[in-house]
Amino acid sequence: MRATIMLEVGSDIAEKCSAAAGIPVDVKNPDGADIQIGMREFVPTPDLKLVQTVSAGVDHINFRNFPDRVVFCSNAGAFSDSVAQHAFALILSSTNRICRFSSEIRSGTYRKDLVHTLYGETLGILGYGGIGQSCARIARSLGMKVLAYTRSRKNDGFVDRYADSPEDIMSDSSVVIIALPLTSATRNFVDRRLLKKFHGSIIVNVARADIVAREDMLEFLRENPGMLFLSDVWWNEPDIELPLPENSVVTPHVAGISQESMSTALMRACGNVRKYLDGKPEHVVNIKEYL
Amino acid sequence: MRATIMLEVGSDIAEKCSAAAGIPVDVKNPDGADIQIGMREFVPTPDLKLVQTVSAGVDHINFRNFPDRVVFCSNAGAFSDSVAQHAFALILSSTNRICRFSSEIRSGTYRKDLVHTLYGETLGILGYGGIGQSCARIARSLGMKVLAYTRSRKNDGFVDRYADSPEDIMSDSSVVIIALPLTSATRNFVDRRLLKKFHGSIIVNVARADIVAREDMLEFLRENPGMLFLSDVWWNEPDIELPLPENSVVTPHVAGISQESMSTALMRACGNVRKYLDGKPEHVVNIKEYL
Repeated sequence: MRATIMLEVGSDIAEKCSAAAGIPVDVKNPDGADIQIGMREFVPTPDLKLVQTVSAGVDHINFRNFPDRVVFCSNAGAFSDSVAQHAFALILSSTNRICRFSSEIRSGTYRKDLVHTLYGETLGILGYGGIGQSCARIARSLGMKVLAYTRSRKNDGFVDRYADSPEDIMSDSSVVIIALPLTSATRNFVDRRLLKKFHGSIIVNVARADIVAREDMLEFLRENPGMLFLSDVWWNEPDIELPLPENSVVTPHVAGISQESMSTALMRACGNVRKYLDGKPEHVVNIKEYL
Repeated sequence: MRATIMLEVGSDIAEKCSAAAGIPVDVKNPDGADIQIGMREFVPTPDLKLVQTVSAGVDHINFRNFPDRVVFCSNAGAFSDSVAQHAFALILSSTNRICRFSSEIRSGTYRKDLVHTLYGETLGILGYGGIGQSCARIARSLGMKVLAYTRSRKNDGFVDRYADSPEDIMSDSSVVIIALPLTSATRNFVDRRLLKKFHGSIIVNVARADIVAREDMLEFLRENPGMLFLSDVWWNEPDIELPLPENSVVTPHVAGISQESMSTALMRACGNVRKYLDGKPEHVVNIKEYL
């Protein structure tokens, strides 16, 4: 068995990957390799048995190009902590008006204003996987109550209550974080009907843009100038239609992308290759959900 | 016994205060009142027995104006959660470059860059009172290790290690939060000597400007353009000397000042008046430390 990394990495990294996976690992050499490890570029070679992604999500892969025998494993949870950090960077910079205060003072205007304390408020999380869980942990440390909506409930001590429906999340939370995977079932999941239930102050998207119905959200933001949409993703990124709504804060899909998290994620992916070879792969993708 | 609130509040608030303190409480009526509750304006009347601050700190009070018999109680810890939230709003907006990304995208530039994941890094806290403790809790939720320097160690489960000296905090942390009270002993506490030990990336001040030696910090920031000073306070605020160092982010002393936190803090102050009347006041100020 041989694996190949479909990314530009040095031989030192490949060596570490080989140690983690327990088989030879080379770089960008898919011909004859049994396993491909990478972000988005994979090749349907005759020998291919496993595709292991370094990214947490797999919605960008065109599964139809690959024969049924190829197993796909995601790296779900790999970037959870750093994505959750980004979610709270978006939230806290808004509640505490950091960008406005900082630029005002820099230009000579010292003007106090109230900030928004989250202590005692409720965070609702749509999709309680790795990212949701990390967000819950941070929210609790800020004194927030946590409400979650998910298919598979976890008893991790961070959730105060599981909601029976996404409508419950929207109606009972002052801050909502969207942390669902993008599948055929979650496309346009957050739509006009769901947004109408929301009476809080902030909606955050650190997942994929298309989980939110674009026109519905833009209309919602126009009609509710006091509500904020904080998003690391945007429809049709990187070709973003301007102007952005006044009550939005957008970052260029960078959540989780740090030097530290990338190398951690690669090693985690290689560790799962080892588990696959041992017959116990984690995060096996149910391809039907993406077709 | 009668208390008076030295702040512009309505009679509904005074009524709530009276319920919490267990004695009549009126508004801005110090003549003949035994107790004054307020932020910074207090009057040394002949009847005055107790000054209870709503603010957490008492460094702004001119203790020399009051006879020795007057007891001063601070409201230490009252704003801890919201001040800690502000500290992390400053930190996360910088590590995740929220202000830059947001303004770039808004003006048509979609440019990715690495963010800085805090997971696994060390937060050093100078002064482990209520604010330090709330900061430690948030840091742990982000996967950080916590190092603290304090006179009175607490076993709260949030501190990985207590440092023997402030030098240890500086040399062993990648992020340092200053959360000391300003007393005669802590004025200019963070000086050139201490700054020289720092090899991390971010220093945060959510306490008082004068805990940091001004010229030493400005020199340090000039000499270390890659390091950041994030501060809610500034020397001689609100008259701030411009230009600010490029590698600083400053907010106008707003940490903790939210609608929610102010009313919580006032009720907490009134609760301590009740404890004083019961002979068990908390947070009695050792005035010698401030002379």
